[in-house]
Amino acid sequence: MTDQNLPDVAFLQRLAAAAAAETLPLFRSVSLIDNKDQDGFDPVTAADKQAEAAIRAVIEEVYPDHGIIGEEYGTVRATASHVWIIDPIDGTRAFISGLPVWGTLVGLRVDGVSKAGFMSQPYTGELFVADGEASMLLRDGKAPVELATRKHHAVEEATLFTTTPALFKDAKRTAYDRLESRVRLPRYGCDCYAFAMLAAGFADIVIEAGLQTYDIAALIPLIELAGGVVTTWEGGNAVDGGDVIAAATPALHAAALDILNR
Amino acid sequence: MTDQNLPDVAFLQRLAAAAAAETLPLFRSVSLIDNKDQDGFDPVTAADKQAEAAIRAVIEEVYPDHGIIGEEYGTVRATASHVWIIDPIDGTRAFISGLPVWGTLVGLRVDGVSKAGFMSQPYTGELFVADGEASMLLRDGKAPVELATRKHHAVEEATLFTTTPALFKDAKRTAYDRLESRVRLPRYGCDCYAFAMLAAGFADIVIEAGLQTYDIAALIPLIELAGGVVTTWEGGNAVDGGDVIAAATPALHAAALDILNR
Repeated sequence: MTDQNLPDVAFLQRLAAAAAAETLPLFRSVSLIDNKDQDGFDPVTAADKQAEAAIRAVIEEVYPDHGIIGEEYGTVRATASHVWIIDPIDGTRAFISGLPVWGTLVGLRVDGVSKAGFMSQPYTGELFVADGEASMLLRDGKAPVELATRKHHAVEEATLFTTTPALFKDAKRTAYDRLESRVRLPRYGCDCYAFAMLAAGFADIVIEAGLQTYDIAALIPLIELAGGVVTTWEGGNAVDGGDVIAAATPALHAAALDILNR
Repeated sequence: MTDQNLPDVAFLQRLAAAAAAETLPLFRSVSLIDNKDQDGFDPVTAADKQAEAAIRAVIEEVYPDHGIIGEEYGTVRATASHVWIIDPIDGTRAFISGLPVWGTLVGLRVDGVSKAGFMSQPYTGELFVADGEASMLLRDGKAPVELATRKHHAVEEATLFTTTPALFKDAKRTAYDRLESRVRLPRYGCDCYAFAMLAAGFADIVIEAGLQTYDIAALIPLIELAGGVVTTWEGGNAVDGGDVIAAATPALHAAALDILNR
């Protein structure tokens, strides 16, 4: 525990394991799909719901005074100083397509600021975790790797990730296209895994629109403690979601925001 | 050995292991990037070259009369009845971005027809392999899984993968957009992993343009022996590459070709 009552890595690993016990047996089992939204396509699996329930049970047991915000089961104790923010399966479309680039996201917000969190990918056995002091990649049987973003890349040398350009409408699409046209390599389709790769030094910019708090809260400390910057497109705190841009360095972030908001 | 002198699975595993010994230590080591093409962006890593050399050495040792076509080191004995077709790292952009959706592809063409092959993803420990009789997923410590495509899906229920719509120009883009607008879920960015997921029953259509033989030869038997169909957009043999479409069933393939060529 630190002076902010941050949990240790072992507790975060326990949450990841509780979720993995629900998600991993069901990964590559497409018969579990159902739809939240009858009009569009918004797949949710039984794994999603069971994983969030498992994470919430562990938090309620150890930190009964903490708040919880989850994608599937809503909010309790929202005004607590410490609030856990959960997306049991970020990248459900990857999940139902058999691709190992989805993740379980759990973040801890303290007095409105994202302080700790993780992205867990149980099929690859990867846990990208920020404990408030550093960002690390933990993998069974491997030595821990401290994560650091890539340095000294200009926009013209950057790899940029987004889920899909179809996220961006009207003026936002124009702004996105202006940024994409400047980078070296745009890539689509990786949801939370793209943010983890930014923290790990293999991507330079990740840009999304219309995120919820549970899509991003866990990833903010992971990126910041690795040397990166995450804000809204306006440069504000991204913990509540919205239109979000992450970059490997403060300089690259400033340059990308400048292109976006020109 | 069968009557067509097809190699057994153990030989294909040996090729995959030889490649993995070169690729895996260098995965997530971006300093090795160099560029084939000074004008555009065509990353090739040292891993790419070393892996192809390792695969060729094993083939030359065991089957010295067989032909070999490789992305990095060209062609020998092209007129042999048996020709091995190698892409040491398909998805080099995924490779340099840290994403575990690249693969090593090795196919065996016998008298012009793709008969056996594999896609190996050593970071996840997956070997998607077709030995001439069945398609299987082999993974260390796990029971082999026989692969089968998804059945009874109409175009309107299909998941469609392509590397990026930007592959398709002019009339091809119009045709692609017509198909994409009909499917339930389009996804971008997975190269060979998308074809493996089609064989495994988690994707329904994969469509690409301008493939080389080494991008597709290994994947044809993997998909066909799982119940799918792979052809050019004109319905011909896809073993030489070009504009390629794969589908989970003959009916879905016919429906997709009809929309594409309308």
